[in-house]
Order: sequence, then C-alpha cells, then structure tokens
Amino acid sequence: MLVALAGGVGAARFLRGLVDVHPPDDITAIVNTGDDVTLHGLHISPDVDTVIYTLSDDVNPETGWGLRDESWRVMAELERRGGLTWFRLGDRDLGTHLYRTQRLAEGATLSAITASLAGSRGLGLRVLPMSDDRVETRVVVDGAEIGFQEYFVHRQHSVAVDSVRFAGVESARPAAGVLDAIGAADAVIVCPSNPVVSIGPILAVPGVRDALVARREHTVAVSPIIAGAALKGPADRMMTELGMEPSVVGVARLYAPFACTLVVDIADADRAADVEAEGMECVVTPTIMTGPPEAAALARAVLKAVAR
Amino acid sequence: MLVALAGGVGAARFLRGLVDVHPPDDITAIVNTGDDVTLHGLHISPDVDTVIYTLSDDVNPETGWGLRDESWRVMAELERRGGLTWFRLGDRDLGTHLYRTQRLAEGATLSAITASLAGSRGLGLRVLPMSDDRVETRVVVDGAEIGFQEYFVHRQHSVAVDSVRFAGVESARPAAGVLDAIGAADAVIVCPSNPVVSIGPILAVPGVRDALVARREHTVAVSPIIAGAALKGPADRMMTELGMEPSVVGVARLYAPFACTLVVDIADADRAADVEAEGMECVVTPTIMTGPPEAAALARAVLKAVAR
Repeated sequence: MLVALAGGVGAARFLRGLVDVHPPDDITAIVNTGDDVTLHGLHISPDVDTVIYTLSDDVNPETGWGLRDESWRVMAELERRGGLTWFRLGDRDLGTHLYRTQRLAEGATLSAITASLAGSRGLGLRVLPMSDDRVETRVVVDGAEIGFQEYFVHRQHSVAVDSVRFAGVESARPAAGVLDAIGAADAVIVCPSNPVVSIGPILAVPGVRDALVARREHTVAVSPIIAGAALKGPADRMMTELGMEPSVVGVARLYAPFACTLVVDIADADRAADVEAEGMECVVTPTIMTGPPEAAALARAVLKAVAR
Repeated sequence: MLVALAGGVGAARFLRGLVDVHPPDDITAIVNTGDDVTLHGLHISPDVDTVIYTLSDDVNPETGWGLRDESWRVMAELERRGGLTWFRLGDRDLGTHLYRTQRLAEGATLSAITASLAGSRGLGLRVLPMSDDRVETRVVVDGAEIGFQEYFVHRQHSVAVDSVRFAGVESARPAAGVLDAIGAADAVIVCPSNPVVSIGPILAVPGVRDALVARREHTVAVSPIIAGAALKGPADRMMTELGMEPSVVGVARLYAPFACTLVVDIADADRAADVEAEGMECVVTPTIMTGPPEAAALARAVLKAVAR
C-alpha cells in the first residue's frame, strides 16, 4: 500500500502518473485542507478538488485546477450584482461546493464527503483530507494577517510573506484513517507540492509528523523546487522570505527528519551531494511533468526509489 | 407614499402593474421572508427575489419566479454528485444567493443586501424584507413539522397542512423602516398573496399588525382567492385545512381587523354583500393579471379604492 501526501496541482499531476503505474486501489492520498476557504457560505477545498478532478480526467488541462468544459454564468451574475469575484468559481465546479456544503450542514464529515465525491467519479484511489477539523493556513503580509486564498488568489502571491501559521491545528485531529495508512504503508511519497503551505499543514496536524518520522526509511519525497525555482506558485519566494534556501537543499533540510530519499530534477544533478550532506539519499531524474507520460515516468522513478 | 405587503408571484405581478400607474420612488414593498431557506449553505429569499426579478423585468415569464435566459449547469453537476436538487436553483439565480450569503457572512443586514440587489437592478421602488431577523414558516403535515419549502417545493404542497407557525417570530423585529413606512403611508395595499403563509408572517412580526390596525382606514387588500380557488399555489386548500372558508369572505374575515376595503374579482360579484357583512367595503373588478396591462388595470382600480 502506498500513501501520498498531497497539495494541489503538482501533487495531482504526480498522482495521475502514479495511478498509471500502480493499482489505484492500493493508494491513499492524504490531502492538504489548510487552504480550504468559505466564500459565499460555500465550503471550498481547493486541493482536494484538484486531486479528484485531475484523477477523474475532468480537470481543466490548461490551468491544472477547475473543471473542463466550464462556464461562468454564476460569476457573471455575481459580478453584475457587485459581489466578490476574485475567487473564480465555475458553474460545474460550484456543483461540488454546493454538495460539500449541504452535506457538512447535515453533519457529514469532510472525509465522508470527500469519499462520496471521489466515489461518484469512480476513483479507485482513496482520497483523505488531512483532518476533518478546520485548520486555516494564514499568512502575515505587510504587517497584517490574511487567509491563504486572500494571499494566493486575490493578491496573486505577489507580496512578501513574513510568517505562516496554521490556525486551529493544535486542536485538530488527523482524519480517520490517516495515521493508520501512514503506519501500514509500504511506502510514503511526499508529492511535489509547496513544502511550506501544502505539505506543511499536513505535517502540523498533531500525530502526523511523528507517524512519518517512524516511517522515515519508507518515505520518499519529490522536490517541487527545480534549479532554485518553483514551476508554479510561490514556493521558491516563500522559502526565501521565510529564511530557507529555495533549492533542493532547502527542501532536503525540511524533509530529512522524516524522509530518507529526495527525488530531484536533472537540472539539480550538481546539488545531489549537497542533498546527501543533509542526510537524504538523492535520486536524480526528470521531474517536469509536461504530460501524463512524463508524470508516469516520474512515478516509476519514485517507485524505484521506494523499492531500494 | 404607498406601502404594499407582498408575498411572491402574485404580489410581484401586482407591483409590476403598480409601478406602471404610480411613481416607483413613491412605493415601499414590505416582503415576506418567512419562506427563506438555507440550502447548500446559501441564504435564499424566494419572495424578495421574485419581487426584485419581476420588477426589473428579468423574471422568467413562464414560471413567474426565477430568471429569464436561465441555465442549469450547477444543478446538473450537483445531480451528478448525488446532491439535493429538489429546490431548483438556476445558474444566474445562484449569483443572487451567493451575493446575499457572502454579505450576510460579512455582517450586512438582509435589508441592506436587499437594497443593494434592488439598486443594482435599477429599481425605483423600495424593497424591504419584513424583518432582518430569522423567521421560519413551518408547517405540520402527516404529524411531522417541516420547513415551508420542504412542503411547498419538495412535496409540491400536495399534502394537507395541520398547522402553521412562524418560528422565531416572537423575538423578531420589523426591519428598519417597516413601521415608519406603514405609519407614514397614504395607503397600505395588501397584495394578492397567500393570506396564511405570505401575508401571515408579515402580520406576525411584533408591531406590524398593530401598525396596520392603526391605519385600517387607509388599507386596501386584494383577494388572492377567486371563485373559491387560488390561481396558483395552495392558498385555497390551506385555508380549508386550517378551518377557514376558502373564499373572498374567508379572506375578508382575516383582513377586516386591519383593512377597510377588499378588492375581489368579478367572478365573486355575488359575494360582495357577504364581504361587506364582514365589515369591509367590497370593490369588484377583474383581478386576473394575465399580463402587464391587466396588472396595471388592477393597480388602477386599487388606487381608486385607496382614494375613496
């Protein structure tokens, strides 16, 4: 059994490759919910949705998030009324958010709802939110604390981050199945996601980091940083702003306590020794997932590292 | 200044006629919010929306509620996920509900939001919800209490009502402006709406009924019952089920304490004396609003009754 810790787009693409080379029924994805947001009364779980949409081949291939064949009639009307429209919600996508919110109001857990959403799309892979409790990633920018989506989407992560916290995480519990899955896994894969705000919240849920540390010899991580830069999103800048080195070495420093191997891109071959100096084995392989074949190849390389 | 007490479709059509024969800026509609419902986390105000959509000529002319040129992509997706879809929400209509819900979450009152919604559609007429506090019309059917929309939409009002109550009304306050408008009005018009579940909740808000009683000589009501039947909806059956006579006379008994005149359809000319026996003047005129000209003609007849 494989367990994968996942954020949004990068993780989803990797998982899409993984299910091509490993039986989906044998994979559990534990997904970040720190960037969940309530807007218009609707509970939105961006990373969970990106994983589910991508794995059901229904994701918008251009953006990597949202749905294919999307329309924007609700947003157009909301705009006409003067509503809040910086977080774009497509009509089809809204079906997911209405479904989730109604079931939460009826008392269902986020895990149960996530299982239903994955099930209704015929997913084999199990998708678990990291927690059924509310954990909210918040960042301080310009001296003021704002929600993650406010930073990421509204301000287009164009502003320096002074600090990050996961509000509510102290009292959050891992969702049912999370610790058991990590404990029983043949291997744990840390997907190529932002280490600070995608993997960070999962690690911060009490019990998760300890469970991973106990499985260090079975844990392999894929670096989301390639030649000092993130392919997408603010991971590199954020690492710099928070005093980390924005490189595979910086990633190795974060992950070494609980992962024994770091998979890095061929562009970082010259940093392999530095990664190993941080106490991780380093596997060098192409990690840019330009399409499903490249994602499958990366997944194969990760499984090979796992088998060592 | 005119004040109109309004439910949904019938009231909206009447008001659409009224603004053709009287300056809209000079009219305040006080609208029932007892059948507001929260679904999918969204606050839906069906009567307020029907009034605003109708007065901005954007209502679906076939149904009398919802919007023109509507699409149903969110509902289709929700259905695919196995969600709750008995309350049909069109894509454009959802823009309104997202707007309202977000502003409520930000602390705005229902009246402020209603004013914004009416304003963004260029309405001259002032639309006030009866209260900014939550009042919930609930009915007992088959021995169980259910919400109004559950009865009206989900069960298509096909089941007998044993009783009706307005949960929360004891502690509700009239929205700012409601009592002042009634007190200052040259005339108050009770629109052709269900007396029990459209006008009833407005009357039940503490202070409103007394304010109307004080203005009895200036209050004119239009009967929603024509020849013993409601044109639309369950008003006739509901009156019977609750022990009232489903006729203009039954309506007169309900309204006589606070209205001096009842406008009835020509089909009820033979009941005019019975209405007057209940202590109301009776005006007989065509009341079926097949289109805007008929609605305007009815409004003219009501204004004439008001002037007497």
